[in-house]
Amino acid sequence: MKSNLTPLGPKADKDTVRRSNLSLVLRAVRDEGEGEATRAGVAARVGLTRAAVSSLVEQLLETGFLTESGKTFSGQAGRPGTALKTARTGPAGLGVEVNIDYVSVCVVDLAGTGRVRLTEHLDNRGTPPDEVLARAARIAARTLDSAREQELYPVGVALALPGLVSGGAVRQAPNLGWNQVPAEELFAAALAVEHPGHPELPVRSENEANLAALAELWFGGLERIRSFLYLTGEIGVGGAVVIDGELLRGAHGFAGEIGHVVVDARGPQCRCGSRGCLEQYAGQAALLRAAGIDGGGGGLGVAELEKRVRAGDERAVGAVAEAGRMLGRVLSGAVNLLDPDAVVLGGIYRNLMPWLSPPADEELTGRVVSGLWSPRGGRLRASSVAGDAARGAAALVMTDVLADPVAYARPAMA
Amino acid sequence: MKSNLTPLGPKADKDTVRRSNLSLVLRAVRDEGEGEATRAGVAARVGLTRAAVSSLVEQLLETGFLTESGKTFSGQAGRPGTALKTARTGPAGLGVEVNIDYVSVCVVDLAGTGRVRLTEHLDNRGTPPDEVLARAARIAARTLDSAREQELYPVGVALALPGLVSGGAVRQAPNLGWNQVPAEELFAAALAVEHPGHPELPVRSENEANLAALAELWFGGLERIRSFLYLTGEIGVGGAVVIDGELLRGAHGFAGEIGHVVVDARGPQCRCGSRGCLEQYAGQAALLRAAGIDGGGGGLGVAELEKRVRAGDERAVGAVAEAGRMLGRVLSGAVNLLDPDAVVLGGIYRNLMPWLSPPADEELTGRVVSGLWSPRGGRLRASSVAGDAARGAAALVMTDVLADPVAYARPAMA
Repeated sequence: MKSNLTPLGPKADKDTVRRSNLSLVLRAVRDEGEGEATRAGVAARVGLTRAAVSSLVEQLLETGFLTESGKTFSGQAGRPGTALKTARTGPAGLGVEVNIDYVSVCVVDLAGTGRVRLTEHLDNRGTPPDEVLARAARIAARTLDSAREQELYPVGVALALPGLVSGGAVRQAPNLGWNQVPAEELFAAALAVEHPGHPELPVRSENEANLAALAELWFGGLERIRSFLYLTGEIGVGGAVVIDGELLRGAHGFAGEIGHVVVDARGPQCRCGSRGCLEQYAGQAALLRAAGIDGGGGGLGVAELEKRVRAGDERAVGAVAEAGRMLGRVLSGAVNLLDPDAVVLGGIYRNLMPWLSPPADEELTGRVVSGLWSPRGGRLRASSVAGDAARGAAALVMTDVLADPVAYARPAMA
Repeated sequence: MKSNLTPLGPKADKDTVRRSNLSLVLRAVRDEGEGEATRAGVAARVGLTRAAVSSLVEQLLETGFLTESGKTFSGQAGRPGTALKTARTGPAGLGVEVNIDYVSVCVVDLAGTGRVRLTEHLDNRGTPPDEVLARAARIAARTLDSAREQELYPVGVALALPGLVSGGAVRQAPNLGWNQVPAEELFAAALAVEHPGHPELPVRSENEANLAALAELWFGGLERIRSFLYLTGEIGVGGAVVIDGELLRGAHGFAGEIGHVVVDARGPQCRCGSRGCLEQYAGQAALLRAAGIDGGGGGLGVAELEKRVRAGDERAVGAVAEAGRMLGRVLSGAVNLLDPDAVVLGGIYRNLMPWLSPPADEELTGRVVSGLWSPRGGRLRASSVAGDAARGAAALVMTDVLADPVAYARPAMA
């Protein structure tokens, strides 16, 4: 996460400044990574005096956001400093991904590290939305119990949902068959039932591909890549646009729907109502169908596809290559429009890259107008994980804590 | 132009703060428009004290950036204030658009108002780039003479070029047949020859559709529209992406190339090297061809097309409708990807909107996945002018002046 220095207006009082600086220091320690942060290093990084940083660190130690351990050498001249780390206990974020054929829940700590993960593969199609969300709440409640055993206390929930999400509701999730589902409200009510006697957690929601893209941005080791298109192959084809390290949400929160860019105007009917969308050529169902694999149930079809492709099965390899061509064709348009640093493919595409990317790169090379696309350029790349919307969701919750730790300080963590 | 408050670091000295505040006040006066700005109004707008603003205004009056005229009633309680305006003389911006079949030069003043405009229709294809740029410099030199008569002194030049522009050069302008042309350098050298005895002007360059989009953003009366796709129909189809009031330049400066998004992978060969690009269906040449009009020379073909469409000529109307469908198809993908507030059509599309937009809207309505596109939504709109890259370029130069007027202050304006 970028350390955005919020400009403070002329009326910022001392308390506001201190709270902002506490956030700055906490984020600096987190960004330094394991055992590398010292007071001196943090001071240099954030541009405050050593004395100011020491005072801020003291408060963060007292309130349980930081811990201190042993001695470290700063690598520079001067005496060794004490190593600072973000606490592994205390406030945590809960991310709940409700996808077509699985629910995955993740709890992350202050560092954004996944500490609890519970995934259940099940088919959510054909089940009423309130039941699906109640099931997700039940799974979430179990992770809350695990989290508590690790002394992690979630301060909020973010739902990752495979559709158009805005204002707390799923406006449309064609592959789930959801329309105008008040997901946040339903989930919150279900969680109160499944996890009684606990403080109510604020719930927010976001498109799952957007959150997977944030996970990639925050934890994917992208280094200098700050602008990218993210595609995740699932039952649908999810997408997200990241520009200068920020997620593009769009005027209504619906940006990134690359799965519904048209490949062939007279192509097959899509669940979204249009025809010939990318999803109809490169989505999981289309891929399995083209490869002659029964797509039923819990990721088994995808595992079979990967197995056949690796074994050189001609039909499977051909199906993946054709999907790659269609991906490349649509991506060439997106690259001409946005000129991103990279295109990152996640979900089922990740393990198929050796067969998917050559035809995709060929299309891109032939169609990106700048001439700056080449298969050797490394601009088309696999995501670091197969898709981690749940972790992205959990980490999104933590951005609030990191932005104003004082608001989340607890007197005791028993 | 947005009043971006640059956050000042802790080391900002008093001089830096004052210069920044001079910029703030100057921009506030400009944004208030004709005869509406008062010291009190500016103070309220920028959040500085009345006394501070008075002192800043004094300096801006002395250095010739502001003028004062008569009395105005503020519309609020209190005594009437003196009306402030940006000066109509002094520093100015020079914008030079070199397009396929015309060169247009514009001089703008501090308010961004176009004060001199010289356009020559001529075919720049088949002429060596250095000759084209020398011709443009000759035209520019004439406008400099006109500007001087109005006591306007350009402080810089921006070139608007129909191609991929980066690092001062045109990497590729397929419709001009330019490759790797050091446009800034060639223009600067030519201007020194055409306009001898004058201080050398710094030259910058940018894609013409990007500058037309900036002109639309700054002067198009878009009000609450901060994110939009801009398309300009010319010999080519230019495009630009504006997000949150900022031009998206992309990783290499090549964003916005919507003219080269593929409509049909096996479609006609495009000059860019790809096949079936939008330009081959909705560019000027394709439109005129489909309408059965000889496209030769200086916009006459387009005038003929407009005439025939207005007269109800079936072939012409059909050609425009088909171009609209193809535009809508490609735009639906772009809207799914970016979810902009609006799509703005300029260039030759502007006068063709009554025939172009219904089929485009139909495609968009059927293919935008959010269901938030409707022909009545007003999201597809004509640009306020037919395309004003030259004014956008000239205004871009002025952003430097507005950002730090002190750097451009002249002791006397004789």
